[in-house]
Amino acid sequence: MAAPAPTTQQEMRRRNLARVLHAVSDGGPLSRAAVAARIGLTRTSVSTLVDELLGAGLLVELGPGRSGTVGRPGTALALSDRGPCGIGAEIGVDHLAVCAVDLRGEVRARIAVDAANRDSDPRPVLRRLSSLVREIAEVVEGAGLRPAGLAVAVPGLVARGTTTVVQAPNLGWTGLDLAPLLDADTPGLAPGAGFFLDNEANLGALAELWLGGHSPEPEGFVHVSAEIGIGAAIVVDGALLRGTRGFAGELGHVPVRPEGRPCACGGIGCLEQYAGEEAVLRAAGFDPRVTAERHPGPGARIDLLAVRAEGGDRAVLRALAEAGTALGTALTGAVNLLDPRTVVLGGALARLAPWLLPSLEGELGRRLAGPPPVAVSRLGPDGPLLGAAHSVVRAVLDDPLAHRGA
Amino acid sequence: MAAPAPTTQQEMRRRNLARVLHAVSDGGPLSRAAVAARIGLTRTSVSTLVDELLGAGLLVELGPGRSGTVGRPGTALALSDRGPCGIGAEIGVDHLAVCAVDLRGEVRARIAVDAANRDSDPRPVLRRLSSLVREIAEVVEGAGLRPAGLAVAVPGLVARGTTTVVQAPNLGWTGLDLAPLLDADTPGLAPGAGFFLDNEANLGALAELWLGGHSPEPEGFVHVSAEIGIGAAIVVDGALLRGTRGFAGELGHVPVRPEGRPCACGGIGCLEQYAGEEAVLRAAGFDPRVTAERHPGPGARIDLLAVRAEGGDRAVLRALAEAGTALGTALTGAVNLLDPRTVVLGGALARLAPWLLPSLEGELGRRLAGPPPVAVSRLGPDGPLLGAAHSVVRAVLDDPLAHRGA
Repeated sequence: MAAPAPTTQQEMRRRNLARVLHAVSDGGPLSRAAVAARIGLTRTSVSTLVDELLGAGLLVELGPGRSGTVGRPGTALALSDRGPCGIGAEIGVDHLAVCAVDLRGEVRARIAVDAANRDSDPRPVLRRLSSLVREIAEVVEGAGLRPAGLAVAVPGLVARGTTTVVQAPNLGWTGLDLAPLLDADTPGLAPGAGFFLDNEANLGALAELWLGGHSPEPEGFVHVSAEIGIGAAIVVDGALLRGTRGFAGELGHVPVRPEGRPCACGGIGCLEQYAGEEAVLRAAGFDPRVTAERHPGPGARIDLLAVRAEGGDRAVLRALAEAGTALGTALTGAVNLLDPRTVVLGGALARLAPWLLPSLEGELGRRLAGPPPVAVSRLGPDGPLLGAAHSVVRAVLDDPLAHRGA
Repeated sequence: MAAPAPTTQQEMRRRNLARVLHAVSDGGPLSRAAVAARIGLTRTSVSTLVDELLGAGLLVELGPGRSGTVGRPGTALALSDRGPCGIGAEIGVDHLAVCAVDLRGEVRARIAVDAANRDSDPRPVLRRLSSLVREIAEVVEGAGLRPAGLAVAVPGLVARGTTTVVQAPNLGWTGLDLAPLLDADTPGLAPGAGFFLDNEANLGALAELWLGGHSPEPEGFVHVSAEIGIGAAIVVDGALLRGTRGFAGELGHVPVRPEGRPCACGGIGCLEQYAGEEAVLRAAGFDPRVTAERHPGPGARIDLLAVRAEGGDRAVLRALAEAGTALGTALTGAVNLLDPRTVVLGGALARLAPWLLPSLEGELGRRLAGPPPVAVSRLGPDGPLLGAAHSVVRAVLDDPLAHRGA
């Protein structure tokens, strides 16, 4: 039951190489001495590790550094803008998107196209995605980058540690392994690289963890987003809480009106029936189906609600206030169970925050003695796509030996 | 942001010593070859580590082993029944208890006394606890054991990583550091040893994790227990989920009737108002205060309810069924958020399981497509006390260099 531990010199070296890369990633350009001070190794040991990482093309030297230490000025080390990069992709109900992020965390290429993926045949969707990944890879290969892996966000449940969509209701996909449906020559699937599949809410929360400017570990928050349903994910001690099957974070099916409306999940009075996109549209007087036809595309209905709310539409304002209250009830349960530092509204919910927050915070304050602050994410709707690409980059930083120069 | 990693030979040796001890602890008597196979090190490396652990008095040789491998029979290695032991203690509302557990996990001494700790002055309570710890330590020191640390369970919130009770409503203690209130010569507080304080529900869940016969990692469950309120704790991937402040697991304050009864916590319709001991007594027609006076002592009111239920008392049966339903509503939220493998009823709730389970499982089944099984703990009310003592033992197994022979 002991935590996995290194047992050999080889594993110790692998870990220390990863610590050097993470130190440079977190701390910007650093001298060898500054790296040594950050990770608690001797300068001699660090120099050996750095030489290996320079040789592998993962680190570069920027010239005289700004280490601030007395003595011979160090050369500043930075992550390379060439070499391995992460490819992130997103399969949305209304769109496909792909991006490439380099080791420094910079987005180097990005493409997004509208798509009609609702209740779709998955084969052409995955073929089209493969084609978009090839386009992005060609662009970045011209700049000296090579895809180290491909991570894909889907709006559905993914079995933990697999590439199988257990259930994606809006796509109409059930029990489907996506790996065999990608073209065999899709960049990032090459030997030595990896294909990762994850729920969009999970990847959105990881993006928030890595890019949202949060405090150092132990960090913990509940990240609530939305596309069609309510998406949520939980970060505990700086890591995603996945659950035994990979299904954790289903805030949308926490009962908020225990004897209320039946839910498509088979439950009763679930949050989604009071704060999901369809519920809010209906409460504001729209026919959700007609509205979806008139306003297709990612975020279009959310934009509609935001524009109406900005214009003072009373039915929309009332519907959003009710949704905020329902979110507050469900989050009261989550806060009691998880004791997060903050609650973060991300994705589409961030756009609606001005009208959700008053009633949401009011409900938390009515039920909790010391409610956590509710923050609004600055990442916007790109969270899941960025989280996907960054998860590949972090896999490289965590295990640099597997990604040495080709 | 990388996980803490070993950086030196010294740390690698520390980790490998811990892996050897955990292998022997998990696998019963093992030959050197069997240890090597379990942890993936060479037999030569394992022999060096084992020699050090034998020299430190943490391991002993039992004579020819049962490794089942071909070739020269190995000598079986076992954990010592002498040397470091863990002292666990529990401060209950109605009692104090202390026990000593050796490296093998055997309880070597145990004492429990009735006490009137409700709304108490903490100083005499801690002095009396110190005295009980000294008694237990004297007993086990005669058998060649020495206290390696003291862990204390309290019915209240403990600030993460501290020895401060933030709030223990039934004891009447608020913002209180217990460390200075223990006698300075209390065994387990000596230099090199440690004093740990934790919530009783957390320690009960850890006991269930370590002693409850669960499957290997990644294990995840929600452990629900009860003394006066509803205690719960969450295990994720084989570790306790503590929350940023240390307050996670407050299932008792998840809203189950959002516009229902006001709760002492300031919330509305919390689970505790429908399934806590006082709520169940009241629903069954008892006056909780009078009943507490007539039936003092740990578990006395739970025993009363169980005896009445066994006798077919319809008011008690109805009250327990209602409590089971309320537990099921709150647990529906917890299951959606956490995706545990199981729900475990422990502590006093285990005693009442026969009458809670039908409505609890009915409620989970009504709200969840694939509800997790609900298990009943075999540990009984000793969970928190055993969890406390075992947490000290595990600290020794995790860092054997700090606990070499005195």
